[in-house]
Amino acid sequence: MAAHSPHLLPDHACLIVHGSDRPGIVAAVSALITRNRGNIVAFDQYSDDPTGGAYFQRVLFHRPDLSAALPEIEADLGRTLEGSDLRWTITDQSVPKRMAILASKQDHCLLDLLWRHRRGDLPVTIPMVISNHTDAAEDVRSFGVPFFHVPSTPGPDKSASEAEIVKLLAGNVDFVVLARYMQILSADFLEKLAVPVINIHHSFLPAFIGAEPYKKAKERGVKLIGATSHYVTTDLDEGPIIDQDTIRVTHADTVAELARRGADVERQVLSRAVLWHAQDRVIQHGNHTIVF
Amino acid sequence: MAAHSPHLLPDHACLIVHGSDRPGIVAAVSALITRNRGNIVAFDQYSDDPTGGAYFQRVLFHRPDLSAALPEIEADLGRTLEGSDLRWTITDQSVPKRMAILASKQDHCLLDLLWRHRRGDLPVTIPMVISNHTDAAEDVRSFGVPFFHVPSTPGPDKSASEAEIVKLLAGNVDFVVLARYMQILSADFLEKLAVPVINIHHSFLPAFIGAEPYKKAKERGVKLIGATSHYVTTDLDEGPIIDQDTIRVTHADTVAELARRGADVERQVLSRAVLWHAQDRVIQHGNHTIVF
Amino acid sequence: MAAHSPHLLPDHACLIVHGSDRPGIVAAVSALITRNRGNIVAFDQYSDDPTGGAYFQRVLFHRPDLSAALPEIEADLGRTLEGSDLRWTITDQSVPKRMAILASKQDHCLLDLLWRHRRGDLPVTIPMVISNHTDAAEDVRSFGVPFFHVPSTPGPDKSASEAEIVKLLAGNVDFVVLARYMQILSADFLEKLAVPVINIHHSFLPAFIGAEPYKKAKERGVKLIGATSHYVTTDLDEGPIIDQDTIRVTHADTVAELARRGADVERQVLSRAVLWHAQDRVIQHGNHTIVF
Amino acid sequence: MAAHSPHLLPDHACLIVHGSDRPGIVAAVSALITRNRGNIVAFDQYSDDPTGGAYFQRVLFHRPDLSAALPEIEADLGRTLEGSDLRWTITDQSVPKRMAILASKQDHCLLDLLWRHRRGDLPVTIPMVISNHTDAAEDVRSFGVPFFHVPSTPGPDKSASEAEIVKLLAGNVDFVVLARYMQILSADFLEKLAVPVINIHHSFLPAFIGAEPYKKAKERGVKLIGATSHYVTTDLDEGPIIDQDTIRVTHADTVAELARRGADVERQVLSRAVLWHAQDRVIQHGNHTIVF
Repeated sequence: MAAHSPHLLPDHACLIVHGSDRPGIVAAVSALITRNRGNIVAFDQYSDDPTGGAYFQRVLFHRPDLSAALPEIEADLGRTLEGSDLRWTITDQSVPKRMAILASKQDHCLLDLLWRHRRGDLPVTIPMVISNHTDAAEDVRSFGVPFFHVPSTPGPDKSASEAEIVKLLAGNVDFVVLARYMQILSADFLEKLAVPVINIHHSFLPAFIGAEPYKKAKERGVKLIGATSHYVTTDLDEGPIIDQDTIRVTHADTVAELARRGADVERQVLSRAVLWHAQDRVIQHGNHTIVF
Repeated sequence: MAAHSPHLLPDHACLIVHGSDRPGIVAAVSALITRNRGNIVAFDQYSDDPTGGAYFQRVLFHRPDLSAALPEIEADLGRTLEGSDLRWTITDQSVPKRMAILASKQDHCLLDLLWRHRRGDLPVTIPMVISNHTDAAEDVRSFGVPFFHVPSTPGPDKSASEAEIVKLLAGNVDFVVLARYMQILSADFLEKLAVPVINIHHSFLPAFIGAEPYKKAKERGVKLIGATSHYVTTDLDEGPIIDQDTIRVTHADTVAELARRGADVERQVLSRAVLWHAQDRVIQHGNHTIVF
Repeated sequence: MAAHSPHLLPDHACLIVHGSDRPGIVAAVSALITRNRGNIVAFDQYSDDPTGGAYFQRVLFHRPDLSAALPEIEADLGRTLEGSDLRWTITDQSVPKRMAILASKQDHCLLDLLWRHRRGDLPVTIPMVISNHTDAAEDVRSFGVPFFHVPSTPGPDKSASEAEIVKLLAGNVDFVVLARYMQILSADFLEKLAVPVINIHHSFLPAFIGAEPYKKAKERGVKLIGATSHYVTTDLDEGPIIDQDTIRVTHADTVAELARRGADVERQVLSRAVLWHAQDRVIQHGNHTIVF
Repeated sequence: MAAHSPHLLPDHACLIVHGSDRPGIVAAVSALITRNRGNIVAFDQYSDDPTGGAYFQRVLFHRPDLSAALPEIEADLGRTLEGSDLRWTITDQSVPKRMAILASKQDHCLLDLLWRHRRGDLPVTIPMVISNHTDAAEDVRSFGVPFFHVPSTPGPDKSASEAEIVKLLAGNVDFVVLARYMQILSADFLEKLAVPVINIHHSFLPAFIGAEPYKKAKERGVKLIGATSHYVTTDLDEGPIIDQDTIRVTHADTVAELARRGADVERQVLSRAVLWHAQDRVIQHGNHTIVF
């Protein structure tokens, strides 16, 4: 049973507005919130070009009896932003997002997320963990979280196992986290899933492509080990970056020690990316993100 | 001659609003900007408590022919926010702030600011450097900046030298930076100066009070050396913090090496604090700051 | 059941030598290792003053059939360093140190250590966890680690509960970790325990003494949150520092969020301090440490 | 005139030994230092594999009247290590290395090095700065350092300008720093130069090849900006890494701001790499470095 997360805010809504910039959007949106009896708690806005750029906005506002008023506010938003190309989403911040985790053999990111969730550090529920191995089953269930084993279809065609995963996830989750899930996802799978997928992978300066990256990093004598968390697109490991970090290492660190320290950065970066996504702080735009 | 700073933005205004929170401020302010033909580029707002807290807002907006329109916008602001306890300031972001630097013998922070200014990294002018020593005179003047030598009055009463400094600064500067200026400023001096004063000092975990802090830090075996930049109040080294940072050190670092590395953190932290202040990003509130 | 730790090195010994510096110690020690058929893998030495300072040395060496040869090497060390004031300890690096954990209600440091141990990241065994609360019992036992509940004696005199803890630990552990154990230990307890005790506590710039440090840090607007791990001495929170670290925070972080992020730093710093201690990398000297 | 650097140590020698590991090297080297009346101040040794790996050692020792004794110590070293494949170099740490700087238009790394040198932070002399532009001439000379303008030969064949540079440097310098020198050096040039060359370049996660890296980094939304300092080999930007670092950036940073912050990391990383090289802390091995 997870602790109540302080990130779940009763009677708070988060409104994201995103599209082509033009004068007056801030005024229109804030007037709308005021006339709907909302009190703005935090308002972040950014335009990537003052003339003809894109507009990004996140507003957190307090409104008594929010859940009752939400349909009305949504209707008002529809009318107010009609005719513009602005997209908007409004979410009740007292409702946790449903997060599924896909994992393989390595469990450092998986267990870190389960443990942070239990502490109440993440405003999410975890309806299920799916893995192509059974190793983590007992651990996952000890957190009160259902565990499903979906072995990867042998060979390059993963459509059978992917179909099984989609069946489990469809309609049941708001986003998916790949916690060191070592399978490439097909474009078809991502399309059917239709929810955001967050991945974590190691990062180095310079990059080392292919197998055994830590061995290559050791041979090259890198002084930094890093990790990148990003949204998954059909272009593997190349989706919009949510967060990154690095730590210092030395020539005395063995390959095993580099991997151990890399695991530490990975779980730090992934947990931040998950928290920010769950708090509706991240807006995707082209191949990058705005993080408020 | 300093390079033109990319931080100087033609036809951009920065509006700070700060006071007791109540519903509708964002709407009122953004409507005002829209009706004055401004296009909001960045809007940051924060309330420290959704019910009855304090309100902080920084808006950067583009407005053609800003300088001509500014008096009109200011009049509108006066009317719009009349009757509230909200304080506001609006600044033309194409006009650099005038920054004086006070220094003593140590020149690392002084030279770093002069050099960053010359590169165009700081949206300021530097009308003068004042020091109680003459060592830096030639260096300062080589940057095209006037240097004034005001020796510290011997004894505890510094009123004579403080009076001379006030005479030089009064009306000529928008803020003052103490770049390792090793003199305590009297409450009377700060009051007469009437502009913000930014200081930098070393910081350790734990703190080491009094003389020879690096020697004490060495004896205590600290693993981090830090620096804090803050606004100066009458309570020495205890004013609102603008920025802080630390770096790792080891047992092998000598006292001189700790001081050398401390100097590196000091100039990094001070230059960030100066940049943020010059960009109107910092709002003082009680004994802390909001940095947008 | 914990994974085998890659930090456990078969046929490797770690020799620490520490005392007054004089010429020839490195030569004497390395000759000794060579004549005992050891091959030096890593040799770190430091003198805090080339003339009349203190000498610190850590040597890791490989020696086939080490455990059989250890008594002989120890006898040789005794003869070689006889008459000097040099203290030495030699440890078989294939033998894990026995680490007890003392905890209270907060479990972030406790669980992090248990989890890292299970992964094989720490070259230790954990014979027991002792807590003055029962909350963590089930979690601890799920890692296969015995849990003992020793409630704190009410009132200022803790001698009864301390006696019970000493009885459990005496002879059974090589060092003790206070993983957010919120009880002050008496000088008498530390003396009876007679093994190193490692503590973790939050650290700020500046320090905030007493209760509710995160609330005070929030009011003061600190931009960094830190943690310090140190050996426990009779002077509370003032023992020799093993490691420290900080992370950036902003005005927008709530007190709860500051505490959550502080917990993250605490577990990172504590796990590094524990690893370094378990690897015999830390030498205490006066009130500071040398970390090789 | 540069301040006396605290890194220049009278009567101290630094001995580097590097080659195939075998038992007894530490003993042989330390015995040699003892019999030559040296007192070891710091001894760092590392083997990359306890059986059949490579051996790396840096010893700093104090020896009264070192300069008089050096030839004798060198002869002893020659005899002691004869027949092994161990290479050694011994340097008098009271003698500053002679460092030339090559620069182009961007002056942030150049000026940072000149300024640190003047403060006494770098144990080097700077006999000359060579640039393919004249912009920095006055600045360089204001530090009392000779400035030579060698325009780059137009076209792909740089042999004429390279020959002129070699003529200036040959015999006059111990190492060369490329402080944002925007010319590719030919293999022939590096061979004729015959001293170590240190370069600095920006680094990103992931890497962005080719022109306008900061623009690409902005489009990709990276959250970290980094820099790498390395020895120059014929494989451009791929030589052994000496140091690296990163700083956090956000979506709100413009391309100009990313470049400005990148310049800050570059000068930090380059100055560390230069200091460590000047202190004989860096050993090249294959395509990586050991940094003691």
